[in-house]
Amino acid sequence: MPQITLTDLAHDLWTESFAISAADLGLPTDQGWSISKRTLRGGRREGVDLIRLHNGQLSIDILPTRGMGIWRGQFRGDRLGWSSPVVDGPVHPSQVNLAGLGGFGWLDGFDELLARCGLEHNGPPIQEGPFAHGLHGRIQNIPAHSVSIQICDTPPYELIVEGQVDEARLFGLRMRMKTRYRTVPGSNRLSIRDEFVNLGDRPARLAALYHWNLGPPYLEQGSRFVAAIRSVVPQTPRAAEGVGRFDTFGAPEPGFAEQVYLMELIGHGTEGSTPTMLRSASGDKAVVLRFATSQLPCFTLWKNTMGPGEGYVTGLEPATNYPNPRTFERRHGRFVELAPGETHVAELTLEILDHPQAIASVEAEVEALQARVSPTVLDSPQEPHAPGP
Amino acid sequence: MPQITLTDLAHDLWTESFAISAADLGLPTDQGWSISKRTLRGGRREGVDLIRLHNGQLSIDILPTRGMGIWRGQFRGDRLGWSSPVVDGPVHPSQVNLAGLGGFGWLDGFDELLARCGLEHNGPPIQEGPFAHGLHGRIQNIPAHSVSIQICDTPPYELIVEGQVDEARLFGLRMRMKTRYRTVPGSNRLSIRDEFVNLGDRPARLAALYHWNLGPPYLEQGSRFVAAIRSVVPQTPRAAEGVGRFDTFGAPEPGFAEQVYLMELIGHGTEGSTPTMLRSASGDKAVVLRFATSQLPCFTLWKNTMGPGEGYVTGLEPATNYPNPRTFERRHGRFVELAPGETHVAELTLEILDHPQAIASVEAEVEALQARVSPTVLDSPQEPHAPGP
Amino acid sequence: MPQITLTDLAHDLWTESFAISAADLGLPTDQGWSISKRTLRGGRREGVDLIRLHNGQLSIDILPTRGMGIWRGQFRGDRLGWSSPVVDGPVHPSQVNLAGLGGFGWLDGFDELLARCGLEHNGPPIQEGPFAHGLHGRIQNIPAHSVSIQICDTPPYELIVEGQVDEARLFGLRMRMKTRYRTVPGSNRLSIRDEFVNLGDRPARLAALYHWNLGPPYLEQGSRFVAAIRSVVPQTPRAAEGVGRFDTFGAPEPGFAEQVYLMELIGHGTEGSTPTMLRSASGDKAVVLRFATSQLPCFTLWKNTMGPGEGYVTGLEPATNYPNPRTFERRHGRFVELAPGETHVAELTLEILDHPQAIASVEAEVEALQARVSPTVLDSPQEPHAPGP
Repeated sequence: MPQITLTDLAHDLWTESFAISAADLGLPTDQGWSISKRTLRGGRREGVDLIRLHNGQLSIDILPTRGMGIWRGQFRGDRLGWSSPVVDGPVHPSQVNLAGLGGFGWLDGFDELLARCGLEHNGPPIQEGPFAHGLHGRIQNIPAHSVSIQICDTPPYELIVEGQVDEARLFGLRMRMKTRYRTVPGSNRLSIRDEFVNLGDRPARLAALYHWNLGPPYLEQGSRFVAAIRSVVPQTPRAAEGVGRFDTFGAPEPGFAEQVYLMELIGHGTEGSTPTMLRSASGDKAVVLRFATSQLPCFTLWKNTMGPGEGYVTGLEPATNYPNPRTFERRHGRFVELAPGETHVAELTLEILDHPQAIASVEAEVEALQARVSPTVLDSPQEPHAPGP
Repeated sequence: MPQITLTDLAHDLWTESFAISAADLGLPTDQGWSISKRTLRGGRREGVDLIRLHNGQLSIDILPTRGMGIWRGQFRGDRLGWSSPVVDGPVHPSQVNLAGLGGFGWLDGFDELLARCGLEHNGPPIQEGPFAHGLHGRIQNIPAHSVSIQICDTPPYELIVEGQVDEARLFGLRMRMKTRYRTVPGSNRLSIRDEFVNLGDRPARLAALYHWNLGPPYLEQGSRFVAAIRSVVPQTPRAAEGVGRFDTFGAPEPGFAEQVYLMELIGHGTEGSTPTMLRSASGDKAVVLRFATSQLPCFTLWKNTMGPGEGYVTGLEPATNYPNPRTFERRHGRFVELAPGETHVAELTLEILDHPQAIASVEAEVEALQARVSPTVLDSPQEPHAPGP
Repeated sequence: MPQITLTDLAHDLWTESFAISAADLGLPTDQGWSISKRTLRGGRREGVDLIRLHNGQLSIDILPTRGMGIWRGQFRGDRLGWSSPVVDGPVHPSQVNLAGLGGFGWLDGFDELLARCGLEHNGPPIQEGPFAHGLHGRIQNIPAHSVSIQICDTPPYELIVEGQVDEARLFGLRMRMKTRYRTVPGSNRLSIRDEFVNLGDRPARLAALYHWNLGPPYLEQGSRFVAAIRSVVPQTPRAAEGVGRFDTFGAPEPGFAEQVYLMELIGHGTEGSTPTMLRSASGDKAVVLRFATSQLPCFTLWKNTMGPGEGYVTGLEPATNYPNPRTFERRHGRFVELAPGETHVAELTLEILDHPQAIASVEAEVEALQARVSPTVLDSPQEPHAPGP
């Protein structure tokens, strides 16, 4: 299995540009896959490394410079992602001042399909004793120190991109994230496996949230969120206003104030593997995100159907905890405690559907899971999921 | 009209270096004009793009990386600009921490002839609810996402540099500045036209201030500020101390505490086009800045005649509003309200004079405008122009 | 004496890479010295200039981009430095948010053998009126604007690396640091001479601290700190707990809370030249740091024998003052007052010993100095050295 190291700072290795395809390896060329790496130039994207992982049908732009996040993707001509007001991204972390705007500087770089939040903190800005934490934490704005690719030389010739990002400093967290993206040529699927390793000598707390963001064509008036739900809690009074229709989406609405719903989902078996889906109004297109509630027990749905110039988008956010103030989450014991050397694993699969049958099949899977439990939908923010009124 | 695109991030286009002159286009070479672009290297200027627009007599260094500001210029051997304590600029925005120093980090990069202040905010640091705004806002530290040049192929063969800078983020302002610099080969004039477009879906407020900064040879003991003035208000008690001689300048004085005067000017006709001038003591050199009070109704004169090692400089600052605390300016309704898609235009002309007759002619123009109105000079800070004592 | 300029921003000169050795100059090649400069690429080190000054026995990695600090060194196979949790350094200043983490962002880049603290401030984060100062000040995160090397063409063919770093802004300090590193081919010694020049027009205060950081093989269980001591004051109650064994070091201890001791040392003659030494348990290896108490009157010992994953390290920190809150240090008059144009010089020598005799000889030198004075060891934090309880 050929492995190519693109970045390895421990050995002072970094690759400016790189490209590979099946023909280069003497592998079957029928799927037309390719992996390429280049460094973007100019403006706020100057110096951002971008890896395009294209399996022939599904193309994903991975950003080693932005914590191995996913800028955007494409599946058979459909855009995966959203139209952020940030139009000149991907923005280099050196141009994102996390302490800026009173701790909201993270928003200056927010334009991704997948932005990870964490790892010391993943909620709103907060001051704790002498320390200040900015919105959604730091991991998305830390460049990877190690990046490599692999191409399996036996069918189905799986394509792999791996990276490592450290959130570490003296007197602080020392957490390593090892992430691995995998896809099979010609498939509609991307698998993600993240290992979070406590490299410190003392127990440490992990807060990880996967901020998946989608706009049209998956988000539109009448789109629906589909999942097997145990409970739904509105995070704020504003979210409570819309709790009766929490799983359907409206048209773009200038000035729409975001609504956030905190959920517990129902999964299969002890691992709790569960599908969540955003499907178009007509049910012809959908994005499915699968993960295990044993790894990511807290799910947040972010409805932000603002006008098209402001960011018409919804977020599907599986996580270790809810994006509440850090002190609140700690009080409810939702961070993952890791002993020295211990690892927490999170696995997710992104699947893109463009046939009504496939979408109906996921809906049937959800119905079967839901059959066991009637969802509890609270009509106001309440502990333990959300700070009370 | 040949147009060359140097940066266009939407199409992932960026040009490392570029140069063009009349001979390259088969145009008349008698004026010796040239336009060149390069990327500065090393220290705090690493990665700063610089465009030199040289019309043969007047040379202007434009900084796409610093919000299309003007680093400095030269006119027939005379320096346009000032000696900032920042001697290793132009400083890359990634080296300017706007949240640093308690919100005064902007000063770390301040060494320009023209620094724009705004667009969400252009005053002193302020905390407003959960948001913090640093000194003079962000626009000067946002790299342009689009830069191009044009050379008119018919007389007088005008030279044009254009750029676009977005101040935009989710949940925030989405304002685009389209700026255009124009000059005619061999002339003593630079024209600036900025369009500020609200790309958001809701009404937005614009705060734009043009911080033009000049030192010797235009600033010296006995230099004078010349303009047709309706009113002058000292911004602070310190400024009030010097209000009797607000329009004359002293020699460099170590430890001089800045004095700021807020003015309304008198312009021609309904547009209110008006000249402002800084002229040397003997009246042999001057810089004239023309603009329209209908576009930029608020003028601020910044007197900062500190020692030569600290920054002996004065600022001529036409603006949409005064550089007061944001809350104060909003209360007085001085920000420009822009509907979705609406544009505010600001046009300015910089003219360099080196003949007493030309200077006398501007003085006569000012006198004629002033003849209609006697200036009101307040002797203390007062509303509505300045927060009271 | 050949002098090569690597960076001179005033003349827009910067050198991407460079290497020189004795053979290049026709000098004796028996010591195998070399000086090389390159720019690191990738991750958080992207764009960091590194100069390796290798005298054949002693190798030192100087970081012009990080305020001319020393990343790490090597002496005959022994590492000079420590294992910071920051494993992907040296970190570019654009990736260090000094305003981040509530003023503790400096720690994100802290992995050096020598990190200078200062120059306006070198203590803990503090808000003073409208201004905020982050941990340990800014100088270590300001790139040099001037860098050059010299090789003496007469025996002993001394090798010199020089750099200039300005901490300067409008309305603020305007201090220039001119630093010079010198070493003789084949020697075990590095000399440092820093000149701090007040380029402003008014008196200014200088705060400079040399944060020398060492781990194994010099730091280990049973290592000792050796110096001629007039007084020792624990900085905090926590430090007071260990004051009885302030000069010996324990094994790595996960969760060990740092202990800081503030000292006055005894020097030779009126200049007060004095050796300080960290020696291994068996006395076979040591690092000696010599400086003059007339130049650097305040010495701080930082004991941070945390676990190996957190940063097992000790700091030897000669300074103009103690790393206490800025207001406290000013009240006790410990900053250096510099008139306009005035210079403060600090000279240090780093010497690496790997023979017991050499180490015993330094111990004898210390004993002789100490013979004149019995050290005062206070058992609690007390003024004037430390804020009281």
